[in-house]
Amino acid sequence: MAKIKLGILGGGGNSLIGILHRVAAYMYDKYEIVGGVFNSVWEESMDFAEQLGLLTHRIYKDFDNMIEEELKLPESERMQVVSVLTPNFLHYPMAKRLLENGFNVICEKPMTMTYAEAKEIRSLVTDSDLTFAVTYTYTGYPMVREMRHLITSGKIGEVRRVDVQYYQGWINSVIHDKAKRSATWRLDPEKSGMSCCIGDIGTHAFNIAEYVTGQKINYVLADLNYLYDDNPMDIDGTILIRLSEKVKGILRVSQIATGEENNLRISVYGRTGGLRWEQENPNFLEYLPEDGTRQTLTRGQGYNSAISLDGTKIPSGHPEGIFDSMGNIYKGVARALNGEPYHDGEFPTVVDGTRGMDFIEKAIASHEEGNVWKSIEV
Amino acid sequence: MAKIKLGILGGGGNSLIGILHRVAAYMYDKYEIVGGVFNSVWEESMDFAEQLGLLTHRIYKDFDNMIEEELKLPESERMQVVSVLTPNFLHYPMAKRLLENGFNVICEKPMTMTYAEAKEIRSLVTDSDLTFAVTYTYTGYPMVREMRHLITSGKIGEVRRVDVQYYQGWINSVIHDKAKRSATWRLDPEKSGMSCCIGDIGTHAFNIAEYVTGQKINYVLADLNYLYDDNPMDIDGTILIRLSEKVKGILRVSQIATGEENNLRISVYGRTGGLRWEQENPNFLEYLPEDGTRQTLTRGQGYNSAISLDGTKIPSGHPEGIFDSMGNIYKGVARALNGEPYHDGEFPTVVDGTRGMDFIEKAIASHEEGNVWKSIEV
Amino acid sequence: MAKIKLGILGGGGNSLIGILHRVAAYMYDKYEIVGGVFNSVWEESMDFAEQLGLLTHRIYKDFDNMIEEELKLPESERMQVVSVLTPNFLHYPMAKRLLENGFNVICEKPMTMTYAEAKEIRSLVTDSDLTFAVTYTYTGYPMVREMRHLITSGKIGEVRRVDVQYYQGWINSVIHDKAKRSATWRLDPEKSGMSCCIGDIGTHAFNIAEYVTGQKINYVLADLNYLYDDNPMDIDGTILIRLSEKVKGILRVSQIATGEENNLRISVYGRTGGLRWEQENPNFLEYLPEDGTRQTLTRGQGYNSAISLDGTKIPSGHPEGIFDSMGNIYKGVARALNGEPYHDGEFPTVVDGTRGMDFIEKAIASHEEGNVWKSIEV
Amino acid sequence: MAKIKLGILGGGGNSLIGILHRVAAYMYDKYEIVGGVFNSVWEESMDFAEQLGLLTHRIYKDFDNMIEEELKLPESERMQVVSVLTPNFLHYPMAKRLLENGFNVICEKPMTMTYAEAKEIRSLVTDSDLTFAVTYTYTGYPMVREMRHLITSGKIGEVRRVDVQYYQGWINSVIHDKAKRSATWRLDPEKSGMSCCIGDIGTHAFNIAEYVTGQKINYVLADLNYLYDDNPMDIDGTILIRLSEKVKGILRVSQIATGEENNLRISVYGRTGGLRWEQENPNFLEYLPEDGTRQTLTRGQGYNSAISLDGTKIPSGHPEGIFDSMGNIYKGVARALNGEPYHDGEFPTVVDGTRGMDFIEKAIASHEEGNVWKSIEV
Repeated sequence: MAKIKLGILGGGGNSLIGILHRVAAYMYDKYEIVGGVFNSVWEESMDFAEQLGLLTHRIYKDFDNMIEEELKLPESERMQVVSVLTPNFLHYPMAKRLLENGFNVICEKPMTMTYAEAKEIRSLVTDSDLTFAVTYTYTGYPMVREMRHLITSGKIGEVRRVDVQYYQGWINSVIHDKAKRSATWRLDPEKSGMSCCIGDIGTHAFNIAEYVTGQKINYVLADLNYLYDDNPMDIDGTILIRLSEKVKGILRVSQIATGEENNLRISVYGRTGGLRWEQENPNFLEYLPEDGTRQTLTRGQGYNSAISLDGTKIPSGHPEGIFDSMGNIYKGVARALNGEPYHDGEFPTVVDGTRGMDFIEKAIASHEEGNVWKSIEV
Repeated sequence: MAKIKLGILGGGGNSLIGILHRVAAYMYDKYEIVGGVFNSVWEESMDFAEQLGLLTHRIYKDFDNMIEEELKLPESERMQVVSVLTPNFLHYPMAKRLLENGFNVICEKPMTMTYAEAKEIRSLVTDSDLTFAVTYTYTGYPMVREMRHLITSGKIGEVRRVDVQYYQGWINSVIHDKAKRSATWRLDPEKSGMSCCIGDIGTHAFNIAEYVTGQKINYVLADLNYLYDDNPMDIDGTILIRLSEKVKGILRVSQIATGEENNLRISVYGRTGGLRWEQENPNFLEYLPEDGTRQTLTRGQGYNSAISLDGTKIPSGHPEGIFDSMGNIYKGVARALNGEPYHDGEFPTVVDGTRGMDFIEKAIASHEEGNVWKSIEV
Repeated sequence: MAKIKLGILGGGGNSLIGILHRVAAYMYDKYEIVGGVFNSVWEESMDFAEQLGLLTHRIYKDFDNMIEEELKLPESERMQVVSVLTPNFLHYPMAKRLLENGFNVICEKPMTMTYAEAKEIRSLVTDSDLTFAVTYTYTGYPMVREMRHLITSGKIGEVRRVDVQYYQGWINSVIHDKAKRSATWRLDPEKSGMSCCIGDIGTHAFNIAEYVTGQKINYVLADLNYLYDDNPMDIDGTILIRLSEKVKGILRVSQIATGEENNLRISVYGRTGGLRWEQENPNFLEYLPEDGTRQTLTRGQGYNSAISLDGTKIPSGHPEGIFDSMGNIYKGVARALNGEPYHDGEFPTVVDGTRGMDFIEKAIASHEEGNVWKSIEV
Repeated sequence: MAKIKLGILGGGGNSLIGILHRVAAYMYDKYEIVGGVFNSVWEESMDFAEQLGLLTHRIYKDFDNMIEEELKLPESERMQVVSVLTPNFLHYPMAKRLLENGFNVICEKPMTMTYAEAKEIRSLVTDSDLTFAVTYTYTGYPMVREMRHLITSGKIGEVRRVDVQYYQGWINSVIHDKAKRSATWRLDPEKSGMSCCIGDIGTHAFNIAEYVTGQKINYVLADLNYLYDDNPMDIDGTILIRLSEKVKGILRVSQIATGEENNLRISVYGRTGGLRWEQENPNFLEYLPEDGTRQTLTRGQGYNSAISLDGTKIPSGHPEGIFDSMGNIYKGVARALNGEPYHDGEFPTVVDGTRGMDFIEKAIASHEEGNVWKSIEV
């Protein structure tokens, strides 16, 4: 089967997101990178393409040029899907124009800068036959998929409590110094949107909670921390959530949790059992049945579900990591593009991306209005 | 040195709290049990005393009889301190009468049924020279004491975020059955006070947060879960906390966290480091400095603080448990009673007990008034 | 029931072994300490007794005096059992004379200095009705008892491989300095017997392997390390073991495993499952069934065996430690002394102590003869 | 820079080793797969190539045909390196012919069937300018590289004890059934060489011990287990090792460690510290300094060594796995092929492969001759 023609916007040089997407694309032999715009400076884009060993004739001067030139190509030669890895404020205009011109899109999160923009993108996708994926990377882990499978198939009974933690400590290196904090793009609303912590990692917490439970978070009440009066962006927050009147929980996110690396954890407790997963040890899933015989489920075992095993390339005991997780998302997109059947949940969709934007706005509003409940739209 | 004469109220038969207090009292060769009332039925009290190998002449018919008879004894023979291990609703009347008659008191938590009662007890203690300890057991662990020492001595810098979890799953065995949940004393407000989950384990979470930070929680906003409309008691709750305007955090407590045993955890993040402790692995304390070189501190090492080492009986690598933790609290009380010097924090005081009662009332009020902020009195 | 009258030899002052045995004796309200010889200097013995709040009239000048005076007491007043906590070279003469005079004995390990002495003690016990316990402390842990129960009841099928590790690093503080290593009693054969590492911790490894499997180690092949030519004592060793022709394994013991505290671990693999236990986290037992659904078994759960639950004082989730473990051994001895029924394995016997001495001699011989197989006598 | 032209022998269909090598090759954008022989049946090879989206004109009928045809190509078009992923008995003849014809080689382990063959390959490499890598995959993990760096740079002082465990349980599924065990190629000496357990996983244990210490294992004494008299292959073994007269240790390997997945662990203790690593949690390295302040070192931190950071694609807290580890080995080979500088230890060489074969033969001989010491040749 011919490989899918993939274009890439952004992700040049030492970009971490760049290598993550490239490895993911290569992983299952499904994609070939045919071109794109890696950097805003054309020469750097060209150099980078050469470093990657790519042919350079489809490395374009800029995004507009790329759209123009690609459309001139016969459809069979054209990029089938474009990965948008540019800074946040470019996601919306690029995604919009790509969709309007018939390109499928893989978009980094947050999907847009505002909920209004997100809804516009969602409409474009809904009204088309195009595939649009938002790379909430953590949903690609086999044991996250297993957790979703176990919960939605009733293994722990009705869900009663959901608890997500996403703790990092990196922003300490800039936040405590006035000069540094005013110079950081992450803390500049123009560049990174209305929120720092909620926007960057809170959305992951929100998304994974909905992903593993298969349910919607309908209400949020947020208490955020900006730490300094001159800092315009939240860097820490705690968010009460309600999935329904009697199913409650919490999202706890921070970028000032000093010493934490990327400590995303999720625990879900149901009437007959609990499940716990930690991103820093992603190959294991703890299952706590009510009889007390706690189990550590691992990846690649016969008892795993189809969607979990499908995202596993090697037997249990041989750890997989975040590149493998992103690889699974790319595999799911490939199946969608190739018209092959795939499991629900193989990649996050425009609906997930739109809900994420609504969540960010509501969390900020809840905080600003004095820690009151806000509802997430359906 | 003569042993301290200890009387015990409650804790007879197979009472778990009974053996916990007895072992704690014996542990450092500081106390002898001279009598008390183990059970409401005198014969059972007598049988139990015999099982314990105690002389039975000071096993009293009831509490009133005990007070009366003990007061007839010369002061040197009289019980110096009485441990109150009876059901919650008896704490207040017993503690009150003991204090009024000059007995020192070790009281199980919650200290009383209401904040008003707690303040009354606090006044009695304040106006006397008596020692009054409330057995928030977890503060006796050497590594909890080490955590307090490290934070209050500045090891992690200014505190920025506090996160306490206390998850149990035991109430699942009664809560989902209407007949069972109406027959359980823990869910009967007459017997166990105004709260189930917040009162039983939320107070521990509140207390340990204040203990390790050496700071006060000034505001709470609670969202509780009762799960069934006919259930009058909270069995799960999430409580936003503020230690000050820019020092925030969370208490997460549940008795429906299916499969969890007694999962109390506390994480505190400061400007230059973080600390994490888990009750189910109490001999270890994780220290996360901002440079990323995370350490696992253990008990009984040369680098431990005086108060931590003081509560350690055996070299590192030989685990101690909850009996040893309670033993340390009894040792602290013994020092107070013997007029010996002791560290601040060797046992929880009537102030801690009173704050605990205030916290319970405020958390319930916050929830009932629609998840609004309530302040804890100074 | 009257408490058992306990005499203690050694264990005075800040002795760690002293407090371990006292707390263990108190723990289940079964023993009262009536006297003994805590120190070789009588005044210090007396002072220490006073510190403990003991009556001092049965604090004896020396061991001979104690035997003499105790025998003058009516049998109902006399010490029923004596704990021998003195330096290793005194175990044999004291245990011998105690047995010859009708006293039951609780003896620290190693039981004697030589296998020949051990056999003599064993004969004395066998020819009497006396109870003799050797305090291999780790066999008192509930989850070690559970492991024994699970293996001997067939949970993991026929045993195929046994692996015990006992790593400490403490001897580094003396071994690398010539003056220090010649001045340490642990490295002086006159005082501590023929072996340092094998004698002190290797015997624990040997004992726990036999304890949990319920089987005998029949052959050993040892490779020891003395590290310096002028050091007469082994401080590290690796010992191949055979339980039978096709059931093999390993004991790995070291006092130069720098940074290790008291890292005793045992793994046993059978035809249908594996079990793993670590002393530094003693409340958990990992069960690895062949279908890959690994379980973490905990203490105090309904699925635990009778002997495990019997040694548990408090519900799961409330950690117990090494004091609780030793308490279980004392409880077992109390039952034997009181003529009550008890489980096989509640306390290590003179047979275990004797096998331990044979093991030490054979391991040394195996090493000295060039790493050859030696058989342990039946 | 043009990509390196890579040929592949074996690894077709659902081969696990196939996808591992392909992903590794793609990971750093250094290689392109130009052809090879994936299966012995040509049609299957062709189908597989198409699945991978490869051009099929260099998919050859068989190995001989491949050599012949490739040599006809101009050097700039020819495969620069060939990965040998075929069954064990084909490694030697293929590697030999590849080397004789000037192809660089990446060879799966064990490198050959015998030590004699290995020495022959080693000579061929030594006498040429060719690069030859043996894929001892675990040496590619960043924290294994960090461990090597820390030990060889003196962080833990002189090495005193080395302990490697490699436990799996998979062979239980065939070993206990006579029919199954005679039908398994892994237990057939014709197909898999003289050893099953030592050859397959013992060599990894041997290799990683030498890799992280930077020292040679000079002597081995092995005790193996075949479990059934009709089973010609070892499936479990324990091997005493000596790096020098006073530096000792142990390799413990088993395929009947029921319930274990791929539990490779290595601990090394030096005069001033210890280091511990576990393959199933590969992103962490425990450092145990003699002062007791144990540290958990992680991947991607500023304190990591150059070789460790070089093999890290994403910040700490984002786990990497075994594909990333193999990717690092391929990157090292790419540097060698491109004439770029690279760190010592970036990929295992023909010397490592040859030592591995010597080790296997000596371990078997040691066992068969009655558990005697055997020396590994320099």
